[in-house]
Amino acid sequence: MTQVSYSPGLEGVIAAATSISYLDVEHEQIVLRGYDLIELARVKRYTEVAYLTLYGHLPSADELAGFEGQLRADAELPEEVYRLLELLPPRMHVIDAQRTALSFLAGLEDPDELRDSSPEANLRKGVRVLARMPGITANAYRALRGLRRVRPDPSFGFAEGFLYMLTGSRPDAEAVRVFDLTLTCYIEHEMPNSTFAARVIASTLSDLYGALVGAAASLKGPLHGGANEAVAHMLLDILQHGGAAAAESYVLERLRRGERIMGFGHRVYMRRYDPRALLMREFLPHLAARRPEGEELVRIHGVVEHVMQREKGLYPNADYPAGLIYYLLGIPIELYTPIFLVARTAGLVAHVTEQHANNRLFRPRVLYEGPRGLRP
Amino acid sequence: MTQVSYSPGLEGVIAAATSISYLDVEHEQIVLRGYDLIELARVKRYTEVAYLTLYGHLPSADELAGFEGQLRADAELPEEVYRLLELLPPRMHVIDAQRTALSFLAGLEDPDELRDSSPEANLRKGVRVLARMPGITANAYRALRGLRRVRPDPSFGFAEGFLYMLTGSRPDAEAVRVFDLTLTCYIEHEMPNSTFAARVIASTLSDLYGALVGAAASLKGPLHGGANEAVAHMLLDILQHGGAAAAESYVLERLRRGERIMGFGHRVYMRRYDPRALLMREFLPHLAARRPEGEELVRIHGVVEHVMQREKGLYPNADYPAGLIYYLLGIPIELYTPIFLVARTAGLVAHVTEQHANNRLFRPRVLYEGPRGLRP
Repeated sequence: MTQVSYSPGLEGVIAAATSISYLDVEHEQIVLRGYDLIELARVKRYTEVAYLTLYGHLPSADELAGFEGQLRADAELPEEVYRLLELLPPRMHVIDAQRTALSFLAGLEDPDELRDSSPEANLRKGVRVLARMPGITANAYRALRGLRRVRPDPSFGFAEGFLYMLTGSRPDAEAVRVFDLTLTCYIEHEMPNSTFAARVIASTLSDLYGALVGAAASLKGPLHGGANEAVAHMLLDILQHGGAAAAESYVLERLRRGERIMGFGHRVYMRRYDPRALLMREFLPHLAARRPEGEELVRIHGVVEHVMQREKGLYPNADYPAGLIYYLLGIPIELYTPIFLVARTAGLVAHVTEQHANNRLFRPRVLYEGPRGLRP
Repeated sequence: MTQVSYSPGLEGVIAAATSISYLDVEHEQIVLRGYDLIELARVKRYTEVAYLTLYGHLPSADELAGFEGQLRADAELPEEVYRLLELLPPRMHVIDAQRTALSFLAGLEDPDELRDSSPEANLRKGVRVLARMPGITANAYRALRGLRRVRPDPSFGFAEGFLYMLTGSRPDAEAVRVFDLTLTCYIEHEMPNSTFAARVIASTLSDLYGALVGAAASLKGPLHGGANEAVAHMLLDILQHGGAAAAESYVLERLRRGERIMGFGHRVYMRRYDPRALLMREFLPHLAARRPEGEELVRIHGVVEHVMQREKGLYPNADYPAGLIYYLLGIPIELYTPIFLVARTAGLVAHVTEQHANNRLFRPRVLYEGPRGLRP
């Protein structure tokens, strides 16, 4: 056994070689296939960046039309999936429903196609899954609430159609633009826990669906994707307990009790601003007027950020503005982590494809701290 | 970013501190909570070793009676689970069905209990899951084949009841003993990919079910749990193509074509015998008479082992004899990896409990090999 010092949580340990993305902390840049993710989010839409993430280059007009056509063509769910969603226990979390549906979807693939771990097969399956994720997500939510099915409308673009299914009404151009931009911000982010979980699972040559199921399980955790929902709950809690004027004392009291404020800090960014949070924050003032309590929530959002920076030296991560943006867009809170998963599907598919193409089984060792030499 | 050399697959990298188990390769011992797993398998039954794995000490007579009583009481599946299994697409693999059912089960927990990541709550949920796994597994298989439900019989012990549900007939004492012993051999094994996947997922403070779902996804992979099924298929393939007399040329031909022979070699054991394989191998001669083709299969098994050792210096791992044992016990081949998962559930629950009790988010870094500086 090679002697290596033990780094809890594998902090600072390099776990994989990748040409998909990289967090360049020194230059405060998220590099995606060679591009600055923030620049991409400003000038491209989600489907363009998803194509880049999956295939390694930005699409030509023809390639983009083909890709968006495929996403549209595969968006409708097989009847069995609707029936599965309608069987779910009503108190299930939507992300657990997504996870269950992803696991179920594996059974609808042709067994040879399911087993095929070539890049071509993984990308085929990956595009199918990405196309279905908005419908799965919206219909999981609706089935759990006892609402009737909502079917993907092929006249909408990807982000527009997704937002339409989430809210039940046709979104305006501002809502679509900002929602699309948040999806791009969430699309890919080097090696967060969920991506790592997907690659670990894929490394047994288990299939794409299994890897995605593991990522969904990871993303649910409050230390990971679950944070954007926690942020929305906290902001509303402050709104109901004194609003912006009471926000500072609310945060100080929580910190005094040793409680964690979600949406701040990041293993990699440490004491710097998450560039995605900086970008998304720009849109908050414009969106504030969309809900009656919007202006006050944006003020609370600013106060909490200020206090956290002053008291703990911690900066917001992407989940901090995203939670508020989704709330201002009228999306039910339990959908925020599921939306993150939909957006991240492109990144996850790219990582599974890369892992399978140049595989090495993940199988680390442990530091054993238990007893020895006992006899039964 | 800390500079660490990159070890593909985290080979030799210590990923966690644990007091559950350890592969002591030098002494060729699998240490489980201080005991030698092979000694445990010889003198204890699965439920005793499961108790040890979960609670850290061997049970007293009272503790064991209480634990086995709980496993019996919780063995029946909620009606919704039967309905879920009956909705699965018929061509789904049983382990994908287990994964889907585990994901679904999360929705049947009380939400507070589901979220509770204290050791007490994880062990409560873990015992419930372990109790249900045999019923899930047998009924998943049956539902996929269009067979009617089989209900857990509380008059049977754990291994006996599981084997009864798998084969549809009351097993004799020899079958129960050997089957129970294989479950113990599979119960826990330090940090294989599935356990690692479970701990990675749990480290986001995601719940036990999510971690188990990830482990199920991992275990399916042909480089991991899937190997015991591949072994059985290979032995039967040789049986149909010349039997023991042709086994050597079969293996040589496969090796010449650069194909992998499943059930041999192990990242940690490398060039030594897996102690579990040594133990399970002892039972093959006794079991051979249980099927008409048994003697010939055991001979083939021996030849392949001999050739692999001579040609590649590789020794069998646990999946090599396990695949044949299950075949000789009359269990359908597509159930072998699912059985592995049922047995391993105890180890996985122990690892999730340990991870949650002393958590650090897994979030490694990457070696970025893609382009830089492109502009959209």
